[in-house]
Amino acid sequence: MSKPKGFEKPSGVRDYLPHAVTKLRRIEREVLACMDRWGYRQIMTPTMEYYDTVGVASSTSDQKLFKLLNKHGTTMVLRSDLTAPIARVMSSLLKDEPLPVRLSYHANVFRAIEEEAGREAEFFQTGVELVGDDTPEADAEVIALAIESLKAAGVEKFKIAMGHMGFLNGLLQEVLPERTEDQESLKQDLLNRDYVGYRNTIAGLNLTEEQQNRLEEVLKLRGGREVAGQALDISSNELARASIEHLCRVWEVLEAYDAAKHVLFDLTMLGDFSYYTGMTFEGYAAELGSPVASGGRYDKLLQQFGRAIPATGFALKTTRILDGVQGEEITEELPVLIRYTAAYRKAGLAKASELRAEGHTVITSLIPDTDGTNAQDKEEAAVSGSMLHRGYQDIITFQ
Amino acid sequence: MSKPKGFEKPSGVRDYLPHAVTKLRRIEREVLACMDRWGYRQIMTPTMEYYDTVGVASSTSDQKLFKLLNKHGTTMVLRSDLTAPIARVMSSLLKDEPLPVRLSYHANVFRAIEEEAGREAEFFQTGVELVGDDTPEADAEVIALAIESLKAAGVEKFKIAMGHMGFLNGLLQEVLPERTEDQESLKQDLLNRDYVGYRNTIAGLNLTEEQQNRLEEVLKLRGGREVAGQALDISSNELARASIEHLCRVWEVLEAYDAAKHVLFDLTMLGDFSYYTGMTFEGYAAELGSPVASGGRYDKLLQQFGRAIPATGFALKTTRILDGVQGEEITEELPVLIRYTAAYRKAGLAKASELRAEGHTVITSLIPDTDGTNAQDKEEAAVSGSMLHRGYQDIITFQ
Repeated sequence: MSKPKGFEKPSGVRDYLPHAVTKLRRIEREVLACMDRWGYRQIMTPTMEYYDTVGVASSTSDQKLFKLLNKHGTTMVLRSDLTAPIARVMSSLLKDEPLPVRLSYHANVFRAIEEEAGREAEFFQTGVELVGDDTPEADAEVIALAIESLKAAGVEKFKIAMGHMGFLNGLLQEVLPERTEDQESLKQDLLNRDYVGYRNTIAGLNLTEEQQNRLEEVLKLRGGREVAGQALDISSNELARASIEHLCRVWEVLEAYDAAKHVLFDLTMLGDFSYYTGMTFEGYAAELGSPVASGGRYDKLLQQFGRAIPATGFALKTTRILDGVQGEEITEELPVLIRYTAAYRKAGLAKASELRAEGHTVITSLIPDTDGTNAQDKEEAAVSGSMLHRGYQDIITFQ
Repeated sequence: MSKPKGFEKPSGVRDYLPHAVTKLRRIEREVLACMDRWGYRQIMTPTMEYYDTVGVASSTSDQKLFKLLNKHGTTMVLRSDLTAPIARVMSSLLKDEPLPVRLSYHANVFRAIEEEAGREAEFFQTGVELVGDDTPEADAEVIALAIESLKAAGVEKFKIAMGHMGFLNGLLQEVLPERTEDQESLKQDLLNRDYVGYRNTIAGLNLTEEQQNRLEEVLKLRGGREVAGQALDISSNELARASIEHLCRVWEVLEAYDAAKHVLFDLTMLGDFSYYTGMTFEGYAAELGSPVASGGRYDKLLQQFGRAIPATGFALKTTRILDGVQGEEITEELPVLIRYTAAYRKAGLAKASELRAEGHTVITSLIPDTDGTNAQDKEEAAVSGSMLHRGYQDIITFQ
């Protein structure tokens, strides 16, 4: 442990300079406006939550939670997602609100990370929760809104992969009844998207050929609508079949949204979050390997806060979109520089006020009486080789 | 230490429901736009900083900093202001940027508090820093911008109280030379705005009548431009006189801004922040006892980060403005409700898409085939007695 130098910041966190802020703010504004047009109203929750409530309910593993103590010695966490805090609000401030409730958010979340290249300790998510509706209609609504939100964020080419926790759970119960440890090993491989590992785990499990074949068939269950039929062929388990039927109904609604063209079935997919109970989905942009959106149904989370109601939602991985996706170039109006001598100060500042009232950006600068240190030269020097300024659209001098 | 209940959140932090978010977001947008028109560009810094760098440099007392450890055992803090982080950025990412640099921010900051009524552990500040200009012109610019920012935030009636750290420091050196402990006692009283305590401290100090009188005169140094003359009458100390002269030059510039009408002299004022070195100011709204803005010059802070340049700035206390100031009522357009049977789903969703493209807010709802649980009744129930919805501007049914 070495003492940090004067200008150092912790690893995994970043400073956003103005050009990055402009881009991030545009994504934030456009996505929230899109969510608003779908009837989702924005909520804000605290950065700190109790570990015993929201911390435990969140799907983030314990060692990845940032923990700190309050003055009473109670452990708090920096929020690792917004889904658990919003579940808390639905069970407190909004407990009498008629259902369904549609909420949106844009917020920074935190993960305690090992120092690894590219892992972030603080990043932004922009998402929605649709609480109190357990129908396929609701799942389709959040997927269709995720698609519109990705477009609003400037992501042009993307695909949504849709799966269901129930299918794999049902199939594994059917093929490997009572063998929960083996089921967990297989699920862990799929969660890690480690298909080689999945095959190796199968090979090591001492299974009949028929069991092996059915488990290996799972890896083929990625593609278009036809995947649903293939899935029904390999499982007669009730939960597995009900899950596929649910996805087919979601698909039907997505077709009515004219959104199915963006969606693929992926029954190898297990949602990243432990609280997911049903449909899950991930959004992939053409430019990027890792998901830019993830979502799913979590029908058991709210009961941890004392209110047993179903919910579904998603979050865009906003920081990843900011970094990885080429949006259209933002062209900002350049500022006007107004320089004035002390004798013409009032005229110069009045002109600045007038231009600002018209919506222009104006920087003002006194021309000193002596020529020794020349303030306006400093202002003009800012034009060249600067991270902040790209010049002036006009320079007006009052003297 | 009792275990928190399922739906509890830590004390001193809050949830913002949509109507509050709308109001807060409007203040944020309007104030940042105002700052942008003055040439201040927005920056974002991390929530967590190293204790040894930004934590120590911030003016927040040690026991009020939220501390936590990273994976390497290094102590971090939740930022308690943005001035120290921006000083760090000026000394690292922006170290080659030509001066002056104008930066703005809107951010949440943190204070570890005892559980007291009305004290907040997390709140918002919106502010600017003008770095690299030590002139009265720069101090006047940030005061004039603070005035415009308060107007943009919807604060209609307010006053700015302007003082100078150097005046009191100089006067106390002159009246009580070498008696630094006594000087500190008197400054602490003034910092707490405890004028009775200040008189008691004077009475207890074993002073000559002339010393007593001069120190008591300080309490009268609040008012208009004439205060500057009174201040010069009671001190011939060089620092004190130079400070007053600086404030007079700031005043002159403020008159050119047509902003002096909002400003009073208050030479009893010591800036809340330990890093202030020169001019300080606070903004008071008619509705509120505590300040809604505070700012000042901090010419020594940046050298803690290895770059000895002067700076001045201010922050609006945005959460306080949100709570305490009656802005104009925000009237939002009510959403349209589109209900459809499964057979008319495509038509219903197409209409929703069309209205959203026109900028309307649309909530969609399937009318179930059976009348048992009626989804659209649920949607309509949301209209009455709700914290989130105030009704629909239109209900369109496709069946």
